[in-house]
Amino acid sequence: MVQKGLLVVLSGPSGAGKGTVCKALAPVMPDMGYSISCTTRQPREGEVEGVNYFFKTREEFKRMMEQDELLEWAEVYGNYYGTPLHYVEEQIAMGKNVLLEIEMQGAMQVKKKYPNGVFIFLIPPSLEELKKRILGRGTETEESFNLRFGAAAGEMKYINEYDYVVVNDEVEKAVDRIRSIITAELCSVKRNREYYNKLIQEGQKNAVSFD
Amino acid sequence: MVQKGLLVVLSGPSGAGKGTVCKALAPVMPDMGYSISCTTRQPREGEVEGVNYFFKTREEFKRMMEQDELLEWAEVYGNYYGTPLHYVEEQIAMGKNVLLEIEMQGAMQVKKKYPNGVFIFLIPPSLEELKKRILGRGTETEESFNLRFGAAAGEMKYINEYDYVVVNDEVEKAVDRIRSIITAELCSVKRNREYYNKLIQEGQKNAVSFD
Repeated sequence: MVQKGLLVVLSGPSGAGKGTVCKALAPVMPDMGYSISCTTRQPREGEVEGVNYFFKTREEFKRMMEQDELLEWAEVYGNYYGTPLHYVEEQIAMGKNVLLEIEMQGAMQVKKKYPNGVFIFLIPPSLEELKKRILGRGTETEESFNLRFGAAAGEMKYINEYDYVVVNDEVEKAVDRIRSIITAELCSVKRNREYYNKLIQEGQKNAVSFD
Repeated sequence: MVQKGLLVVLSGPSGAGKGTVCKALAPVMPDMGYSISCTTRQPREGEVEGVNYFFKTREEFKRMMEQDELLEWAEVYGNYYGTPLHYVEEQIAMGKNVLLEIEMQGAMQVKKKYPNGVFIFLIPPSLEELKKRILGRGTETEESFNLRFGAAAGEMKYINEYDYVVVNDEVEKAVDRIRSIITAELCSVKRNREYYNKLIQEGQKNAVSFD
């Protein structure tokens, strides 16, 4: 019996540091599958098909949506982004854990289809720190800052839809917390009941001859 | 607001290696409180009052039982063993995590009083390995082996009462799994709902002046 892999969903408000944490997580969990998204936006310089994204035309993307080939999708600033279902299903069936770094709306779509997924919400250590990080980009006017900060702060309400909250006070600590969550979930009785019931049955055949 | 500490209960069948794992866990989690049991058995050479055990007369122990001063207790080979409630409650209120290494019957008593505890079941990697470990003690007759192995194997049925199963294939790995479980539980939304709801409310007061 191959134990199924975990589907791990990481999201969080803008400024939480999802990208940095995912990059630091990869060498710590080299066996994890990292899903590659499809997008209709134009490749930026240096982006490679099948590495950064699968680049699709709007027609291709819409066909994937219609044929249920996407685990989740969202439209962001006029471009579509989505997670191909096939890769995720294949990896999980093989017993490999898969990490999706996606927005909250997408995460809620995944939760409907995979209620057994592990949903992690990454947050900055405080709203003050979030403020600093957004300002640190150095490209904000008062208006655009308020818009961005207000949106990020408002997104905190999604916390209750997640299983875990990871505070990104230091990248190394956040990575250790995510690795710990995955390790713990793999040890949880509720995920392994079938396997343990087999062990219990074996245990009950307890007449053993001495050798 | 001080976040309450976790009560972590570690048990498992005889031969799983609970003692070895606990000893290896202590330097990895130096902030964890390790509860010291009361017992009516005689001190063995080198055992120190208040370090290994609190040694009690049967009268003292019975008085503690009657006055609800024990979180759990059990009688093993004619001696009483129990966990003083006061230490556990005090540490947890201060936000410190506490580990109890106790037998399954005791663990079930704790679960009734502390359903929010984290219940971890430590198992050997296989029944074959359990057999080897019991035989490795070199003191078993066929009869005593069968009794001990049968009991340990039969105890596997308790798995379903626990939250997590940790396989003790290598002590270092088992220790990492236990540390991960504790780290993960401290990140869980269900344990921190009150705190997160405060954060969400703060986030909703999102009109921020630029400074």
